[in-house]
Amino acid sequence: MSKQRSEKYDFDLLVIGCGPAGQRAAVQAAKIRKRVAIVDKREVVGGVCVHTGTIPSKSFKEAVLFLSGYRQRSVYGAGYRVKSEIEMSDLTFRCNRIMQIEIDVIHHQLRRNNIEVLPGHARFVDEHTIEIESSEGFIKKTAAKILIAVGAKPRRLDNVNFDGKHIFDSDDILHMEMMPRDLTVVGGGVIGTEYASMFAALGVHVTIIDARKRLLGFVDEEIIECLQYQMRSLGVTLRLGEEVESCELRDGTNQVMTRLKSGKVIMSDCLLFSAGRVSATDDMGIENLGMELDTRGRLVVNEHFQTSLPHIYAAGDVIGFPALASTSAEQGRLVSCHAFSIKDRRIDSEIPYGIYSIPEISYVGKNEEELTHDGVPYETGIARYREIARGHIIGDENGMLKLLFHRETLQILGVHIIGEQATELIHIGQAAMCLKGDLRYFRDTVFNYPTLAECYKVAAYDGYNKVRMSAPSEDF
Amino acid sequence: MSKQRSEKYDFDLLVIGCGPAGQRAAVQAAKIRKRVAIVDKREVVGGVCVHTGTIPSKSFKEAVLFLSGYRQRSVYGAGYRVKSEIEMSDLTFRCNRIMQIEIDVIHHQLRRNNIEVLPGHARFVDEHTIEIESSEGFIKKTAAKILIAVGAKPRRLDNVNFDGKHIFDSDDILHMEMMPRDLTVVGGGVIGTEYASMFAALGVHVTIIDARKRLLGFVDEEIIECLQYQMRSLGVTLRLGEEVESCELRDGTNQVMTRLKSGKVIMSDCLLFSAGRVSATDDMGIENLGMELDTRGRLVVNEHFQTSLPHIYAAGDVIGFPALASTSAEQGRLVSCHAFSIKDRRIDSEIPYGIYSIPEISYVGKNEEELTHDGVPYETGIARYREIARGHIIGDENGMLKLLFHRETLQILGVHIIGEQATELIHIGQAAMCLKGDLRYFRDTVFNYPTLAECYKVAAYDGYNKVRMSAPSEDF
Repeated sequence: MSKQRSEKYDFDLLVIGCGPAGQRAAVQAAKIRKRVAIVDKREVVGGVCVHTGTIPSKSFKEAVLFLSGYRQRSVYGAGYRVKSEIEMSDLTFRCNRIMQIEIDVIHHQLRRNNIEVLPGHARFVDEHTIEIESSEGFIKKTAAKILIAVGAKPRRLDNVNFDGKHIFDSDDILHMEMMPRDLTVVGGGVIGTEYASMFAALGVHVTIIDARKRLLGFVDEEIIECLQYQMRSLGVTLRLGEEVESCELRDGTNQVMTRLKSGKVIMSDCLLFSAGRVSATDDMGIENLGMELDTRGRLVVNEHFQTSLPHIYAAGDVIGFPALASTSAEQGRLVSCHAFSIKDRRIDSEIPYGIYSIPEISYVGKNEEELTHDGVPYETGIARYREIARGHIIGDENGMLKLLFHRETLQILGVHIIGEQATELIHIGQAAMCLKGDLRYFRDTVFNYPTLAECYKVAAYDGYNKVRMSAPSEDF
Repeated sequence: MSKQRSEKYDFDLLVIGCGPAGQRAAVQAAKIRKRVAIVDKREVVGGVCVHTGTIPSKSFKEAVLFLSGYRQRSVYGAGYRVKSEIEMSDLTFRCNRIMQIEIDVIHHQLRRNNIEVLPGHARFVDEHTIEIESSEGFIKKTAAKILIAVGAKPRRLDNVNFDGKHIFDSDDILHMEMMPRDLTVVGGGVIGTEYASMFAALGVHVTIIDARKRLLGFVDEEIIECLQYQMRSLGVTLRLGEEVESCELRDGTNQVMTRLKSGKVIMSDCLLFSAGRVSATDDMGIENLGMELDTRGRLVVNEHFQTSLPHIYAAGDVIGFPALASTSAEQGRLVSCHAFSIKDRRIDSEIPYGIYSIPEISYVGKNEEELTHDGVPYETGIARYREIARGHIIGDENGMLKLLFHRETLQILGVHIIGEQATELIHIGQAAMCLKGDLRYFRDTVFNYPTLAECYKVAAYDGYNKVRMSAPSEDF
């Protein structure tokens, strides 16, 4: 651990942006007594994650699940809901409270670690100098190392009139005043899919449009088939392989009219445009420094998250996929480890992906398409929630867990879950993968009864039976 | 795998009792083509687990959590509940449906594995012969190996008048017709604690009495402190270190009067007597065979679950602690592995324990008292649900996760959780323990955000900081 300080600069590390990546980098550096500051545009800290992204949308989801009675439908009947008329304010009520708590937590953490917070808009003056513009004027600060973690914002098309009343992007969708009867969602990525499924669970008639032939292109195909099937059961219309020609508010009717290139027309009370996000790097003077950007304004970095200027790093949504709060935080940690030569304890860890749609999806490792492409001789072990007691108790009879494993070594290659608690359950599979447990671990482990985790055992038996048939094993 | 059959008997294995232990033993033996039969007293299969134990009580708990709005109280306010007047029929409605599904699943499994089901009461004629008495008369069957898995039943005291209207045991408590205003629970074991907390969550005024100074003596003390604190917050009166002198129904008032030896008197609409369970081995002719029983009628077995007659095994509740469905099933599997010389793949697995109280408790490995007693130099790492985003989103701000680890090797020695999803989350810790991951695994792993599983990371950091202070580590 280096104790030497670069006193020629104001700070050892200056972080621009206070989302998960920025916070984690700052804290990591502060822990080894580096002088750290965070610049953030907002009056309050937290980044997109707390303000318009992860936290509000996940809080909204919990409210939807509860108030719509979604979880209990298969037990109490589809007509069951907690409130007969659910208003937007019922659903966003808890969001504000949770956001405030998260902001307090972050403030407390920054203060405890002596991290200076500088409110304002940051612009590069030179490679080591940042000018910060706030309501109080301009100040300049210098730093030995700089992290750009300004996040991303929704991509907006010029010919779409975002009015915040009928046509929304993912940043303002939760400010919608009235619950719409119908909603058009343009874009079947993570955000589009999450909101489409939530509104559908509330009984809103949702149409989702994407130029690709399926939702969430990076997720295992069978899981997406299951998602699409369930979303259709909820009443969602999927317009896949379709492109939007135009969308506009029709004055007389207060309806949004969306024209597809195929000639179809979709009328709806509201529209959510969620076709991608772009890095929030505007007006930061990045161009002047000659750092490399890709077509969406994303900073190009190497495996240590260094830009083309080695002392300037970038992490989080600003560098693109996967743009998850969890991975962004980890990137931030790795930035400070690299910048300050902290012994790199990057482990051979598998990173889980979580999509908070209804039903929820989570996975770790490879999917079937990737393994097939790589020519790995894998087999699948599948458990459906309806095969286990807990599935019936919580009323999720459509959930499933799929293990992908090497048919000779029984090594776990991937775990894919769709259904209640998927984002929690995945960590059991992740631990087994990272710690070199194989299919036998799940077959031979005792699980609490009744739990959803039992799916791992059922799936292991299913997979084991398939392998046994082709190559008899002695110990089954 | 032995293919030889003992044709001199009707069956290779005869199982008495069709709960988790019996089912699993039967299926395991049938998989290697043994001739297997199950004798069960009830018309339908499933054992206590499906009929009066695990499944009904866990289904009841889900209904309580949902209809009482318990999960949402800290978000929507304590006055929030889904139904203003919750009737017993609202709560047991789903139990019957779920029980029926479970029975179907078991029947299907037995049929698929060609396991013969013989309804009736089994009595030993000699060491290899069972007489089965049913409404159709008596039949005799012989078997090479026999498993006694008849389970347990509530212990009933002679001087308590169980009327099924005001004074219940744990088998008939869910047949209660009216929601009581107040409920006295005698016995602070697993069943007493689970039901006491569920009724308390419904707003019933519950008094729980136990001669011991705390609930659930086998669980970590700090976790129980947290449970007792939360149960008291729910309005439960704990009368610990108190013994019951008498309980009786007072005719005029329709109230149960419970006198404690200390002189206190508790009046309540209903009383649940759940002071222990005894093995259901009555009238089975076990005494004649000379098998050893302990004072509660439990069969004494060796490490292979053999009774004093080596070809007669006993497993499940009939042999006592822990008497959980999950461990009983595992015992059943091990019985068939031993009986038929199936290669023993008993792994070095830690068994999790789950208590479905409100809040839920689960643990794996040792607790603090055990480690202190053994002189192991351990340290704790603690995370509270209120420290992580998911805790706020789901409205559980009292939950906690505690890691116990060896302060030199960082080996995980135990994981203790109280709060939402405890019984699911424990499996992450179990995997790490079984697969030799240590504190660093949790510190360095990326978890989905926001999930409760993040508690593992927060707890690992907390623990790591404590160890670092006494013995500086290079890589923090």
